[in-house]
Order: sequence, then structure tokens, then C-alpha cells
Amino acid sequence: MEFIIQNTVKSPLTAVFSAGVYLIGAGPGAADLITVRGARILANADIVFYDALIDISMLEWCTGTKLVPVGKRCGAHSSSQRFINKQLVDAASKYSVVVRLKGGDPLIFGRAQEEIDALEQAKVPFEVVPGITTALAASAQLKQPPTNRELSRTLTLTTLPARCAHADHKTAIYYMARDQLAEIADALLSEGYAENTPVCLMESVSLPTERSFACTLNELRLGDVHNHFLDKQPVLVMVGEVYRKKLQILKPLIESQINFNVFQEAS
Amino acid sequence: MEFIIQNTVKSPLTAVFSAGVYLIGAGPGAADLITVRGARILANADIVFYDALIDISMLEWCTGTKLVPVGKRCGAHSSSQRFINKQLVDAASKYSVVVRLKGGDPLIFGRAQEEIDALEQAKVPFEVVPGITTALAASAQLKQPPTNRELSRTLTLTTLPARCAHADHKTAIYYMARDQLAEIADALLSEGYAENTPVCLMESVSLPTERSFACTLNELRLGDVHNHFLDKQPVLVMVGEVYRKKLQILKPLIESQINFNVFQEAS
Repeated sequence: MEFIIQNTVKSPLTAVFSAGVYLIGAGPGAADLITVRGARILANADIVFYDALIDISMLEWCTGTKLVPVGKRCGAHSSSQRFINKQLVDAASKYSVVVRLKGGDPLIFGRAQEEIDALEQAKVPFEVVPGITTALAASAQLKQPPTNRELSRTLTLTTLPARCAHADHKTAIYYMARDQLAEIADALLSEGYAENTPVCLMESVSLPTERSFACTLNELRLGDVHNHFLDKQPVLVMVGEVYRKKLQILKPLIESQINFNVFQEAS
Repeated sequence: MEFIIQNTVKSPLTAVFSAGVYLIGAGPGAADLITVRGARILANADIVFYDALIDISMLEWCTGTKLVPVGKRCGAHSSSQRFINKQLVDAASKYSVVVRLKGGDPLIFGRAQEEIDALEQAKVPFEVVPGITTALAASAQLKQPPTNRELSRTLTLTTLPARCAHADHKTAIYYMARDQLAEIADALLSEGYAENTPVCLMESVSLPTERSFACTLNELRLGDVHNHFLDKQPVLVMVGEVYRKKLQILKPLIESQINFNVFQEAS
């Protein structure tokens, strides 16, 4: 089954092809979870600076484009944020359509403020194209709304283990949490969250290597990330009563770890 | 400038065309802010049930598709959520690819849980395709990250005026807030937020009719929505120190209202 999406003359998008820098959200990883606007600009870009977190298949949208990997996970050549800022400003004077492709949404935990400040200071015209942030992609994969009328009308996104402790214990989703499982659990339990509060964890959201687990907040304390997750893959931690049913459906995070602890206590 | 996005044989997306119901996020309004995956499924749908909040240009992705408006804003025929659930289940037995197109992200404040429960109970296969939620689209339009390392590493999304009052006063974004401006301001001020905390308001995010305003939290108390916003258009309210610079750039929300109040006090 094949079909085409065509950019017709009456498209309201002609403006996006004007010269400048585009900060584009690539979405969580799967190449087709970028927006149509983002894909169109990529297909028209002269140069693309992309995060190491971006799945390489995403760049199939680009044709005849200069591709420049930036970011800490690209191997030996770690690009500092300051150097990325400079590259963007320099590229804007040499190329027409410059893209900075960032994982997820460009403005959520992506250090975009520094790039925006650099572009504004250099008077380079720029636009921001939003992307699917990982928390929403993970929710879609789990088929679980993080909010609903009965259990939580509030959703908090954070990178801080000690934050998100709402007085009324509503849904919280932690980004870049792979090395902070026990810390998150301790912080929420000390704020009065119930020990049996459900937790879902998801790795490599939307990619072929995606894996998900569930546990209680009490079990999360026992979670040693190195027993469960692949190195360098970001892990999303979702906490809240809305995830109760997933405890029966998803693979238990801690099973092997609990056996290990029982064994240790008995010996 | 014209180009095509082609669904090649090696696309990982062949699976999305299997029979079932697809809950798809339309994004904030602009037709090209849907994901590529969402647009592809729409183009292959046999029937689409769409929210009244959806901009009609979005449906240009559909060709030869039966289009069914649902939702409270469609005029006289208000569809109750229960009736929508039934329509989805019934359609799955008559059509191959059934789409439920929802504004923003389908799982954020969209009552998707009820549709998911109905589909699961009827054993109808379904998938969820995430969408750009309005808070992130508004941030992109403002070119303002709601989080950054210095001012807020936490973002809360909510529909409740009294919620979001973090002890440390981090960024909060209120959905469906048009009739609750004073209530939101009162709640946050009583929690100790500073009177001069910056607030941005955005109406009809990403559409040609988009408008944005800024004010302080203290000024938000004086805000009578009927003086500023169009009827029935959703208004997003963004509160936090990250928006400080926007106070100088955006149109002041309250200017006319303040003049009106000064006049009243003097007379």
C-alpha cells in the first residue's frame, strides 16, 4: 500500500522554507513520529545538526543534505553546548535552511534556551517546530493516559528525583531517570506516597528495542538499573495510581532482584 | 517548491494499516503539526470520528473517507462520551481502519480512558498515535522553553486552578483555563507565588487566529476573559519565571482593564 503526502501550493507552510534556523523536535525515536512540518523542513534542509539520541533512520527524510552529528553520545568528539551554538550561528551565514534536530520536543529538557539566546544575540531568524515528547510517546505505547478525571487531572514532567511530590500524589513522569531509581522512590515515599503506588518504566520508547516494566514504588527502591537497562539508553519512570492495571500486564521489574535479596538475607 | 514524502516498502509502518481503531492526536490545530504516522493512517482510514476542536483543514489528509464530527462543539448534535464509545466499537465491526482523531495529544486531558476501556471490553484491537499537546505547541510558538536548568527543571500540566502550586514555584501550564483566570491567580498567590510572576496566555495555538498576551500574576486576577478572548476558543495559561522576558515582548493582557479600574476607583 503506497501513497504520497504532497505539499500543495495552497499549503500554509510556504513560510517554513524561508532562510533561517529551525529547531525541530524529532520525537521519541521512530522516524514517523516527527511532525509533517518537521519532515518537510528536513527534506528541504541544507544542513542538519542532529543529537546523538536521534535514531539514524530519522535522517532518511533528508536528501542531499549535509549531516553533522553533535552531542555527547557521538563517540570521541563531544560537542559542548557552546560549540553547538556557534556552529548554528555560523551555518546560518553559509546555508539557507539550517536544522537543529533534537530528540523529543526541542523545548523540554533539551537545553534549547542556550541555542535560542545565541541565535537571538546573533540576530539569526529562527523557528521552533514542536515534537512528541517522550512522556507522551511512552503513554501512547502503554495505551495509558497519564491523566484522567478520577485519578489525576495533573501531570508533572521533571528531571529532578526529589520534585514531583504533589501533596495529593498525582501522576509524575521522570525523564533521564535511569541512574536515579532508588532516589526517586525514597523521595516520593518520604513525601507520603503509598508503598504500593504503581510505577511503569520504559526504555528506548518507540524504537524496535523498546522494553517496559512495572513495579511498585517500594520495589523501585530495590531497583539497580544495571540489572535491567541497557547502557546509555534513556529510561522514563512513570509514577501514579493511573498505572495500577499495568502491574498485571507488564513484566515485573524487580522479580530477579527480589530473589537475589531474599537469597542474600537467608545466607 | 514541491516534494513528496513516500511510504516505501521498507517502512517500519506497514503494521499501522492493519484493521482496528486508531486513537490519533491531531496536534494543536495546524494541519501539518500532526505526526507523519498520524497523517499516513488518516490517508488510509475508512472512517474518521473527529473532535469539534479539530481544524477542518486537518481532514485534507483524508481521501475517500467517511467523516463523522463528534463532540460538544459541533452545534446542535452533542455527542455524549458514551455514544462516541459505542460508535467506535460499532464502526470497528463494519470498517477496516477506524480513526478517532482527537485534538492535541489523545491521552492528555482528552477523556481517552473511557474510549480505551470500551475498546478493550469489546476486544477491538486499537493503537494510540501521540500528538503535539497544546502546551508544547504554544511553547514553540513563543520560542520559550517551559523548563531550563536555572529556573525550572519541572513542568506541570493541569486542568485544575488550585493545583500546580509547587512549593518552589516552578513552571505550570493550565489547559482549558479561559474561565478561570482570576481563580488561578488567587490560588497561586495564596500559595506564595510572587505578585510579579510572569504569565503568558495563548488562544487558538498554531492556527491563523492565534493570539498571545502577557501579564503578571497580580494582573491576571483582574482578567475578565470576556474582554480578551473569543468565545469557545481554548486558552492556555503559562505561569513561571521562565516567561519574564515575554512581559516586554507580548501584548499586555490587562492594559485596557487597568484603565477601566482606575476610572472606576476615581469616580
